[in-house]
Amino acid sequence: MTQMIGVNLGNWLVLEKWMAPELFTGTDAEDEWYLTHGLDDVSRRERFTVHRDSWVTGRDFAYLAARGVRLLRLPVPYFVFGDVPPFLGCVDYLDRAFGWAARYGMRILLDLHTVPESQNGFDNGGVCGVCRFHQEPEHVEFALTVLERLAARYGARPELWGIEVLNEPISPDLWALLDVPKRYPAVDPARAAGSEGVPTEFLAGFYRDAYRRIRAVAPGARVVFHDGFRMREWFGMLDSGEFENFAVDTHMYVMMAGQRDLDGYLEYIARTFGDTLAEASQHFPVLVGEWCLDTKQAALAGMPDDERRTYNRTIATAHLAAFEPAVAWTYWSWRMHVDAPELDTWDFLRTVEAGYLPPLAG
Amino acid sequence: MTQMIGVNLGNWLVLEKWMAPELFTGTDAEDEWYLTHGLDDVSRRERFTVHRDSWVTGRDFAYLAARGVRLLRLPVPYFVFGDVPPFLGCVDYLDRAFGWAARYGMRILLDLHTVPESQNGFDNGGVCGVCRFHQEPEHVEFALTVLERLAARYGARPELWGIEVLNEPISPDLWALLDVPKRYPAVDPARAAGSEGVPTEFLAGFYRDAYRRIRAVAPGARVVFHDGFRMREWFGMLDSGEFENFAVDTHMYVMMAGQRDLDGYLEYIARTFGDTLAEASQHFPVLVGEWCLDTKQAALAGMPDDERRTYNRTIATAHLAAFEPAVAWTYWSWRMHVDAPELDTWDFLRTVEAGYLPPLAG
Repeated sequence: MTQMIGVNLGNWLVLEKWMAPELFTGTDAEDEWYLTHGLDDVSRRERFTVHRDSWVTGRDFAYLAARGVRLLRLPVPYFVFGDVPPFLGCVDYLDRAFGWAARYGMRILLDLHTVPESQNGFDNGGVCGVCRFHQEPEHVEFALTVLERLAARYGARPELWGIEVLNEPISPDLWALLDVPKRYPAVDPARAAGSEGVPTEFLAGFYRDAYRRIRAVAPGARVVFHDGFRMREWFGMLDSGEFENFAVDTHMYVMMAGQRDLDGYLEYIARTFGDTLAEASQHFPVLVGEWCLDTKQAALAGMPDDERRTYNRTIATAHLAAFEPAVAWTYWSWRMHVDAPELDTWDFLRTVEAGYLPPLAG
Repeated sequence: MTQMIGVNLGNWLVLEKWMAPELFTGTDAEDEWYLTHGLDDVSRRERFTVHRDSWVTGRDFAYLAARGVRLLRLPVPYFVFGDVPPFLGCVDYLDRAFGWAARYGMRILLDLHTVPESQNGFDNGGVCGVCRFHQEPEHVEFALTVLERLAARYGARPELWGIEVLNEPISPDLWALLDVPKRYPAVDPARAAGSEGVPTEFLAGFYRDAYRRIRAVAPGARVVFHDGFRMREWFGMLDSGEFENFAVDTHMYVMMAGQRDLDGYLEYIARTFGDTLAEASQHFPVLVGEWCLDTKQAALAGMPDDERRTYNRTIATAHLAAFEPAVAWTYWSWRMHVDAPELDTWDFLRTVEAGYLPPLAG
């Protein structure tokens, strides 16, 4: 199987304030829930519409296709179908993306990136500090109907690469390690009360239900399960024979290694990323759905361009070697609106144009 | 002198409906004047702000710089300084552009693209079917103060390549030939009454006044005069010795040649473009401020990609040869939001990515 390489279309239909702070102007919102509820009806419609019309267009697909990018991971919010007012639906933008993918010979991974009351409490989970999705059966049922509707609408499209059931459902361990309530403070403590990491027992059941309901309407669609920051817990479960045509998504951000010298990063990439992928790929197909070159080295900003290029290219080459066992990878992310050179590596176009990535074969 | 090659940042701060029709949603406006006046205050602010924040960003400069693009022609509206309500000023976006140009080693040509009551009656002149700028001294004086303020703010910036006094002041001949009142119907016939091509006598005086007032605040700034579709009338006038450090802008759209076979286009490009530039360059430095590959050949849309690439590359190569006498050229335009393959050549990124242009040396 040829590895599919790609990028995420981040901050298009699921907003993250740090990626384009100007979209949060005039509010004190830190996440899309409070932004949406903090804007009047006219502002909300104008702001989201112009943003969505502009952030990703067919010309972006033209650029990516010419660079060997074949896969687009597309974060989708739970209100995609427009039935959760005052959120504005965005399914017509998914339609556009499929049209562009058809024109440029690319594939799309639909990624349910948020759910009601969140699966991780991150800003990119839709509402900071809240993680109670799994505690409310009505939320769970709603998410399942969204997946069903996505499967019904796109399941037979040749451009569909897969449907990812849920992005980054946080583990109890990671909830504690990151101290999510402190890192992403909840606006309303009462709303956040009872928030916790998503238990594996719940998640296994949810994945099973999601798989069955997607399969029922889209027999040929690949189903993708995020590892939920607990890869080994899926060994023996997802590969039990119950599931067919699926993959497991794991996110590999080198910045999580903390401050190291270059050799330290190369060691981390080879061991933590490479060994994990080699092991997991013995159990099921694995996708690296998010990664980026940022090592959070303050020294990089002051380096001469050539030196920074060599450094980042070395980090990139190590990633690509470690990712060899993966069936696909998608960089985070296509586009950023922050003019800080130390964040260039979060923007795929800037990353490519600066020569940080080796040429991609596709 | 090394030729500067570049692109226009069209439809960023001066809107043209055909380039991004979605920005005109909910109105029946055909131009920016009626769009601005047709939107309520909240919609206007949201729509223009999100558009301007998104249409051009630093990452676009990164892409262009890596392709050898050194010059950005930046259309500026007369309300740039925010003193013509309800139009929203946009000088902070010029500031951003200069910052990006500094980072990426590029130069900017500020191009006053609209004036009150228009200099051409085109949609891109701000208000369709109206051409009465030159008839009202207060409009003329206002335009001069805009040029002065641009010169004062940017005249000493090393990134400034020049200040273009006025884009495409239409000649009486072209006004008649294009039948502007029919091609761009005025919404309000009373407002358009008396519209006409801009007389050369007026234009020569305006250019002289503009030159003096820019020079007074920006002694080192290059001043650019559009030929107003009457190149030969400037021979002996602009090169009389009165003007220093200036250039003349001429626009060369091959589609104006009408329907021809490939050899016919090549002949037209060599003769009409090449000979004009060779002759005019004997008199003063000439810039081709707008051009694009579109030949309006219906057959192109149905051609195999390779064949279309060869055709367009041939047309492009002929342009670049004809443009050799020019001190600079800037393609129209960086970005378009229309998904019609036959319009790909109006989008510089798509044009480059499709291989229609030969590699640019810069």
